[in-house]
Order: sequence, then structure tokens, then C-alpha cells
Amino acid sequence: MNKAIILLSGGLDSTTMLYYAKSKKFKPYCIIFDYGQRHNIEIDKAKRVARHAKVGYKVVKMSFPWLGSSLIDKSMKIPRHSAVNSRKIPTTYVPARNIIFLSYAVSYAEAIKAGAVFIGANAIDYSGYPDCRPDFFKAYQDVIKKGLKSGVEGKMIKIQTPLLHKSKAQIIRMGLKLKVPYHLTWSCYNGAKKACGVCDSCMLRKKGFLEAGLVDPAIAL
Amino acid sequence: MNKAIILLSGGLDSTTMLYYAKSKKFKPYCIIFDYGQRHNIEIDKAKRVARHAKVGYKVVKMSFPWLGSSLIDKSMKIPRHSAVNSRKIPTTYVPARNIIFLSYAVSYAEAIKAGAVFIGANAIDYSGYPDCRPDFFKAYQDVIKKGLKSGVEGKMIKIQTPLLHKSKAQIIRMGLKLKVPYHLTWSCYNGAKKACGVCDSCMLRKKGFLEAGLVDPAIAL
Repeated sequence: MNKAIILLSGGLDSTTMLYYAKSKKFKPYCIIFDYGQRHNIEIDKAKRVARHAKVGYKVVKMSFPWLGSSLIDKSMKIPRHSAVNSRKIPTTYVPARNIIFLSYAVSYAEAIKAGAVFIGANAIDYSGYPDCRPDFFKAYQDVIKKGLKSGVEGKMIKIQTPLLHKSKAQIIRMGLKLKVPYHLTWSCYNGAKKACGVCDSCMLRKKGFLEAGLVDPAIAL
Repeated sequence: MNKAIILLSGGLDSTTMLYYAKSKKFKPYCIIFDYGQRHNIEIDKAKRVARHAKVGYKVVKMSFPWLGSSLIDKSMKIPRHSAVNSRKIPTTYVPARNIIFLSYAVSYAEAIKAGAVFIGANAIDYSGYPDCRPDFFKAYQDVIKKGLKSGVEGKMIKIQTPLLHKSKAQIIRMGLKLKVPYHLTWSCYNGAKKACGVCDSCMLRKKGFLEAGLVDPAIAL
């Protein structure tokens, strides 16, 4: 069975991806990041998802002491979806977050001889973050080839982005077939007990369920 | 004045590089990594170097819970230099270590609007690690271009590797002109109070001082 590292946030995308990887006969090893996010409620959600899927996980605790994002700097406000200028990268962007996450993931992959790293990035219904775009993953694959022992020895770890070109509705439809427990997932950027329903992440999720003709089982938006 | 992030380990190379960056009129912001290295004595050495150079620093605490290297796994032995097969990457290699370090550094750089990240990698007198080679840095530069907000907006953070093609002796000669406090630096991979004198890192350092016709002021090898 092929080992695969799964970047698991406990949100809709990464949870769907975990079930997708399982359906493709990968053996998942999840990494969950505790990085000072204001919505740290997602960490517990991710653990519950992993337990529900009966897969192992590691929680990596890290921090961005230089902040630089409304997702980690509590003196800033999470913008409402309606206030986001779609031509600009919103303040919820965390500098180099996915670059750091992938770097931990490939380290883990190499240490346990996993051949793949799954990341649930999406470049269709997304917030415009550069580290969610196809060009970035292509460039990162080359770093794996040149900068890792496994890469220079020709046993390259492969970045897998199965959701990259899917709409949220397509992801949800795929997830329903895979019996993804959406009631356990969490997407809201705000750290309250209930999803705010107005941040970018909530709105993209809501739009996805609407387009799929479904009601979100997780949250009353 | 141009802000620059300096990856500082407290060793010979990164300390020389810090003084080089200062001489080139960069304003240094050091990052020191506390990553579970058995030679964690280097963390205090790095702090002393930064204070001596009168520059600020941040210590980033992180871990590799999956180990995979004799530098962090205390059940493994640090190989003697003489036991290292020069055609193989030694067990002191830590999977994706420089990839992770650079990723933190570019995050810091973007958050404080620094234009450069200095890393003291060397591909001449080195242990053969792939993440110290020119090809790797070229690939990583492309990740910066594609995966960071500053990169896609055309204000690219530049990876600076001023020591990449220098021998240890050349680095030391350059450092002496810059008044680098080599008595404060630490290179040994083992975590004892005195440098072991037989690991790869000690041997490369010793060779450098010998070739430069000097005595190492830091350690009695």
C-alpha cells in the first residue's frame, strides 16, 4: 500500500481529499498544523475527521512570530466576503503558509518513505492565494526534485492536488459519493463557536452547497 | 537600508555571512532555529553572535517529530568524518531542513518587507546535502516567484548565497577581513561541551583553518 502524507485542516476540501486518497488505496498519514490560527477550532475538527476515517495523524505546532495576516493577527479583522476585492489577495493570506506546510509534509514523507503528499488546494472557488495556484505546485515539485535526497536519487515524492481544478460544488458531489462526514468539518476563518457565514471561506462553502443543491450538514449559515 | 533575513546557526559559515551582509549595507534580521538538534549548544552561540554583531534575532522553535536523521535522533550515532562515504549523503542529512528553514525565512521577509534572504550554504567543502546545491536554490527562487504574494506582484525576495562556491579557507580569509568573531562560533554536530574534532562538520572546519594557515580560535581540535 502506498503511503501518502495528507495535509489536513479539518475543512471541506482537505477532508474530501483524505477520503479521495483512501479510495485510491493510499495509506494516509495526516499532518494537522497548529500555527496560531484564530480559528484553532479547526484543529479539533481535523483530529475528529482523522479518527472518523480511522487514519493516523501528527499535530505540528509552529508559529509565525512576524504575523502578517488577519488569520493569525488578532488585532486585524477578518474581512467579510463582500468587502474582498477579487483582484487583490485578501488579508487572510498568510505569507508562505502553504510553502511551509508542504515543506514539513515532504520532510515527513521522506522520513517514512511515502511517495506522495496530498494538498487540498483549489484554484477555482478560492481566495486568490498564490500558493494555491498550479504554477506554484509545478515550481514546488522542482524543489522536491533538486533539494531532497529522494529527489536527487530519482525516487521523487509527488505533490498531489486532486481538487485544484474543481469547483466547490464538484468537490462536494465527489465527497458525497465517498461518504465524507461533512458534519464534522469546519471552514470558517473566525474562531467563534458558530461559523460567521460572511467570511470568504464561509461564503465559498455556502456557494458550493447551494450549487450542489444541498444543505450544509455542518453549520447553519 | 535594505532589510535582509539571515539564517543564523552560530556556525562558521552563517556567522561569516552575517558580517558579509552587514558590510554590504543590509540591515540584518536573524532567524535562529531550535529544531531538536542534538548540538543545541549552537542556539546560544548564535544568540551571542547576533548580540556581538548588534543585530536583532528571532528564535523559531520547531520540530521534526518523524526524525529521520542522526542530527536529531539521539538513538543514532553521528558518523565520524572518516566513515563518511563521499559519494553518499550522510545520516546527518535532515529531510527538507533547508527547505523548511528557507520557507520560514521568506515568510518573515514578506511580513517585514525585506528584499533578501541570506543562507550560508556551501557546495564546495560540504557534506553533500542536496539542499546546499546551486540547482536547489535556483528551483527555490522560482517557488518564491510563483507562491508568494510579493513574487506574483513582481517584488521578488532574492535568495542570497554568497558562500556557495567558496572553499572553507576562502570563507575564513574573507571573515577575518570582516572581523568575524570566530571564537564565538560553533560547528560540531555532537552536543558535548567541547567539539568532538572528528565529525564531518569539525573536519571541514579544521581543514579550512589549516588551509588558511591559521589556528581556529574557537575550539581546541
